[in-house]
Amino acid sequence: MPPPPDKRCPSPWGADDERGAANLQTPDVVLRATKLIRDGRMYELGKVLDRSIPMSPGRTFTLNVQRTSGPNGRNLQGGNEETVFTELGQMGTQFDGLAHQQLGPHLYNCVEAEKVVRRSGFTKLGVEKAGSFFTRGVLLDVAALKGVDILPDDYMITVADLEAAMKAANVDIGKADAVLIRTGWGRLWGVENARFMKGEPGIGLDAADFLANRNVMIVGSDNWAVEVRPYPDKGLFLPVHGFLLNVNGIYLIENLDLEALARDKVFEFAFMVAPLKLRGGTGSSVAPIAVR
Amino acid sequence: MPPPPDKRCPSPWGADDERGAANLQTPDVVLRATKLIRDGRMYELGKVLDRSIPMSPGRTFTLNVQRTSGPNGRNLQGGNEETVFTELGQMGTQFDGLAHQQLGPHLYNCVEAEKVVRRSGFTKLGVEKAGSFFTRGVLLDVAALKGVDILPDDYMITVADLEAAMKAANVDIGKADAVLIRTGWGRLWGVENARFMKGEPGIGLDAADFLANRNVMIVGSDNWAVEVRPYPDKGLFLPVHGFLLNVNGIYLIENLDLEALARDKVFEFAFMVAPLKLRGGTGSSVAPIAVR
Amino acid sequence: MPPPPDKRCPSPWGADDERGAANLQTPDVVLRATKLIRDGRMYELGKVLDRSIPMSPGRTFTLNVQRTSGPNGRNLQGGNEETVFTELGQMGTQFDGLAHQQLGPHLYNCVEAEKVVRRSGFTKLGVEKAGSFFTRGVLLDVAALKGVDILPDDYMITVADLEAAMKAANVDIGKADAVLIRTGWGRLWGVENARFMKGEPGIGLDAADFLANRNVMIVGSDNWAVEVRPYPDKGLFLPVHGFLLNVNGIYLIENLDLEALARDKVFEFAFMVAPLKLRGGTGSSVAPIAVR
Amino acid sequence: MPPPPDKRCPSPWGADDERGAANLQTPDVVLRATKLIRDGRMYELGKVLDRSIPMSPGRTFTLNVQRTSGPNGRNLQGGNEETVFTELGQMGTQFDGLAHQQLGPHLYNCVEAEKVVRRSGFTKLGVEKAGSFFTRGVLLDVAALKGVDILPDDYMITVADLEAAMKAANVDIGKADAVLIRTGWGRLWGVENARFMKGEPGIGLDAADFLANRNVMIVGSDNWAVEVRPYPDKGLFLPVHGFLLNVNGIYLIENLDLEALARDKVFEFAFMVAPLKLRGGTGSSVAPIAVR
Repeated sequence: MPPPPDKRCPSPWGADDERGAANLQTPDVVLRATKLIRDGRMYELGKVLDRSIPMSPGRTFTLNVQRTSGPNGRNLQGGNEETVFTELGQMGTQFDGLAHQQLGPHLYNCVEAEKVVRRSGFTKLGVEKAGSFFTRGVLLDVAALKGVDILPDDYMITVADLEAAMKAANVDIGKADAVLIRTGWGRLWGVENARFMKGEPGIGLDAADFLANRNVMIVGSDNWAVEVRPYPDKGLFLPVHGFLLNVNGIYLIENLDLEALARDKVFEFAFMVAPLKLRGGTGSSVAPIAVR
Repeated sequence: MPPPPDKRCPSPWGADDERGAANLQTPDVVLRATKLIRDGRMYELGKVLDRSIPMSPGRTFTLNVQRTSGPNGRNLQGGNEETVFTELGQMGTQFDGLAHQQLGPHLYNCVEAEKVVRRSGFTKLGVEKAGSFFTRGVLLDVAALKGVDILPDDYMITVADLEAAMKAANVDIGKADAVLIRTGWGRLWGVENARFMKGEPGIGLDAADFLANRNVMIVGSDNWAVEVRPYPDKGLFLPVHGFLLNVNGIYLIENLDLEALARDKVFEFAFMVAPLKLRGGTGSSVAPIAVR
Repeated sequence: MPPPPDKRCPSPWGADDERGAANLQTPDVVLRATKLIRDGRMYELGKVLDRSIPMSPGRTFTLNVQRTSGPNGRNLQGGNEETVFTELGQMGTQFDGLAHQQLGPHLYNCVEAEKVVRRSGFTKLGVEKAGSFFTRGVLLDVAALKGVDILPDDYMITVADLEAAMKAANVDIGKADAVLIRTGWGRLWGVENARFMKGEPGIGLDAADFLANRNVMIVGSDNWAVEVRPYPDKGLFLPVHGFLLNVNGIYLIENLDLEALARDKVFEFAFMVAPLKLRGGTGSSVAPIAVR
Repeated sequence: MPPPPDKRCPSPWGADDERGAANLQTPDVVLRATKLIRDGRMYELGKVLDRSIPMSPGRTFTLNVQRTSGPNGRNLQGGNEETVFTELGQMGTQFDGLAHQQLGPHLYNCVEAEKVVRRSGFTKLGVEKAGSFFTRGVLLDVAALKGVDILPDDYMITVADLEAAMKAANVDIGKADAVLIRTGWGRLWGVENARFMKGEPGIGLDAADFLANRNVMIVGSDNWAVEVRPYPDKGLFLPVHGFLLNVNGIYLIENLDLEALARDKVFEFAFMVAPLKLRGGTGSSVAPIAVR
């Protein structure tokens, strides 16, 4: 259970803070990440977006090409563009912001959702406040640790798992890190979409607490909710979301493509993600990169 | 006038190439950019997206909050998300891809648009092919060079202007660079939207040719089309678009926020941009960053 | 103030009723309307829909043509269609259904909104339950009665006004009628959109009560909310909406074009409206007709 | 094969005509239909719209509830509405307008599509020009004639079939009629959606010619394209669409619910349909009614 409002608020960054762990994004964090770039190899961690990707029931993705009527001028210019209709904050590889989750009436920092929600966005805690991220990234490959391609469908990753993965990778994790947890679940993407969305292996509250205690900035995974689904304690619903986003202001990234990093055993790297600045949005589809 | 198809195709990267100048994005380019990071300060170059921003007639941006019905579980979880309807490839700070512009029937590399266009996207040259970018960025502050806040509404930036700006900044430009040209026009964003969209100062074909000859990868600006609008030669329509994107495979980024870089006189930096991987899309709204 | 739940519920049509006054739509009502058709002249009462029409802040209307890639076959078939994004239940000439308005937590018939709302529609009281309408229509031309083109911006139409208009038109109103009230406000449509949406002359609670007591089925007007806006009693918000839709199950139609009927002094006619069957929708854009 | 442009244009209603057979909608046609109303029973012929209905690949239907933030005032007013994103001109029970189909470069009346198409609609032949319809309707129940629930999947309805159905129903068909052809295919709606969309029984060119010669105004059916699909002559693509809409200006209505009319053996009735006035649209989702 999350701590009550008077225990979790105000946030460590003050009662008016709207950025949570993004406050950890300082120049020294950038410099630390920069030092991890050794050979300049870039890994793209974002999935391609189209209407066939796995998505929660009720969501949709539609891209329709618009062709302008050209040709114009002697150069016979013609233009093409597209309309997109989608749950853009929560589609594909996605960055969850601080207006995404409520604990009762409250968003992060005990902001009352009713007071800040408008039809066209949240007046506080919108994803445009989070900024962009350039930090040290760490891959914890729990699937490899367990010697499996994919963790079991309802496997809850424990603190011991994280510690063992850290040891196997010979990395520590700490303040301002982006910790990317590989479950292998991403291998089902586009292959077994129904199974992909039905449940998933992922971290539980203990592992989330372990990460929060180390002051990480971002927790990502190759599944659709970071956390194990359904949650073993049936009385809790998406509790890791609430714990990380709402109580701790730590951002989540879902549906990452971690296969190439895992294949190449890249456990420590510079990590960058730049959410679209959707005013008042709850998150953003993103295309993060890792560079070593 | 653009060179005829038999002069411009196949592209230097082969008849099957779909990535254009993105082929220049190699590990050594990353390493070169990394070396430019000295104090870790990050500059966010993307504008906030909402329905009030300047946009071409006929385009729209709509974000509607969706609130789930929670509370769920003992933790009283509630979720929020949003639907977005917009010309996502061509909205706000935007990255133009290789399916965006036609010269007569042809896209980049003389791909016939009719053969590859589907209602749900282009089967070739989609922006998901471009990948992400991490390269050396250069700011050419033409407005400062001229001693004005904003260049005149229809000013065409010349080769001499670029050379003078390079000299003033003590930078050269070359292969794989992202060249960001400041006109000051961005100061009108959100202030005089109608004027912002009516025309703009920007580069002309000579300056574009100068940049293409130096093998740059990306040309960005703080206006909405990079190039001067309307074009002085009235018989040409958006000719710099066709020349850079279509003939040379060089990407454009529009509506950049270059004010902070200019204020701090940051002329050389690591530049990163990660377009959303919209399958078959013509571009992507983006949130680029510069790091010095 | 609306009567409390125990006074207004269950509705006269039973505790499970989801159709309100649409229950009055019986064959004898059709026959009565049919008898009013004398010369077969049809009046179209719906406004054209496009992105320039008046709409409440936050709403939008976008139509984008989709062209298929033909030509196909020897007949060189080509197809065109369009995507539309809009608040379809509440756009242009619009029919308000029984899920549109709440009094506290309750929809019509004291249905708790929280229990029946889903992101994709209401599981009860959706506009698809209302059916289509073919009934006697009556025009009450209050603007003509007052000898003005347009009633004053904040004029509240009274019971006396309705009675005088009835007398002037030599019509009575009664059970299952569609009563269309002309304020002249529609003349501002497309001419002074900002003024059109800022406020409006219209009926108040007394006039609404007068109509409800006569068991009408539909109340329409040539303004955007049927009722006077802002409401003279500042402590009440859209009270006629709640009184007619929620308490009485009487449907509203807004933004009707009543000019031709008024010009021709057609005060009694057959009236038809067929809302789109949007499952779980709160209303529908419509194109009603009057036939005399 | 359709007649060449010089044989089919100008249309019988003149070179500037944009309404085609809608010109037949005159007061006498209304009066004739009115006389068919005997007991006032209304049949609703429109299908409910939601995201689960059959639709062509690439189309989508999304309705998202928007809840306003109320409660407002002493009356605790709250409002609900919805955003809809869909191919509104071609979704569910749909009315096809004169900009929907091309024969080579031409729309109805040999209007060149390129000259009148804009991203936000057609400047000529838009569905808002068609107006509303109130005319004599005739049901030709070919499935019943053949003694089957549903015609075979690829059955092409012949002139003889139409004549036999007319005889069985003891009706003639003629100028300005709305002829509704029942194939039984509608029974698959929502039951076997994939089969419903894969092909369909329907009329061929001979039957279409028979109807056009009789100057009907509307041809409707309980399948998704009125005509047999795929067309037996594989070199022709949707030829009945081109023949009726483009050559003859006769409107189509698809996906009608004709089951109740058939069950009650209602073969002649007043028919009403009122397309949404989508400026420049190619058609409209509709909710037609029949009244006897």
